[in-house]
Amino acid sequence: MKLTPDELSQRLAEVPGWQLADGKWLVRRFAFHSFTAAIQFTNRVAEVAERRNHHPFIAIDYKVVTLRLTTWHAGGLTAEDFAEAAEIDRLFREAEGARMTETTPEPGAG
Amino acid sequence: MKLTPDELSQRLAEVPGWQLADGKWLVRRFAFHSFTAAIQFTNRVAEVAERRNHHPFIAIDYKVVTLRLTTWHAGGLTAEDFAEAAEIDRLFREAEGARMTETTPEPGAG
Repeated sequence: MKLTPDELSQRLAEVPGWQLADGKWLVRRFAFHSFTAAIQFTNRVAEVAERRNHHPFIAIDYKVVTLRLTTWHAGGLTAEDFAEAAEIDRLFREAEGARMTETTPEPGAG
Repeated sequence: MKLTPDELSQRLAEVPGWQLADGKWLVRRFAFHSFTAAIQFTNRVAEVAERRNHHPFIAIDYKVVTLRLTTWHAGGLTAEDFAEAAEIDRLFREAEGARMTETTPEPGAG
């Protein structure tokens, strides 16, 4: 069911990386350190999308992945869009965490 | 080196699925039978892009993948864009061939 404007404001505050576009899209850009990392993230997003049967529009512009969520049958944003956005944010934090582990030296090393 | 208008016309005739956009983009839409097939194709395109170090813009709209090629440092289309387009077309034919193998019964079966 499409969220009311009040519900929408509340939910938007819970996913600070995402922005509302045209009143019916939830949009976020994710920047990576390489094209390969962007593709790996896209694959993880695709797994989530298939499991939830809710498919964002995905744009890959070299190292930047832009996702756009909406719920077609509701004609706008629903709780499902925000639940998926929150799950994708967790994937992104994990991907970033992995990168930091790769590039940060051990304490005391060097 | 950026192709001349004459070279461009000739090369475009060689990749009939692709269209010229804004005079500097080579664009093609690839439709698949599933989101998963679209993602698999995207991964194969990504491998080609990394190997050639030439990265198309990729848009995944559920079962449809749209690719946009250009050569930034040349300010337009080069032989490299057309070579990559031709290689991607071969991947697409293979992906489509795989699908037909999956869904076509053996001769004499059934």
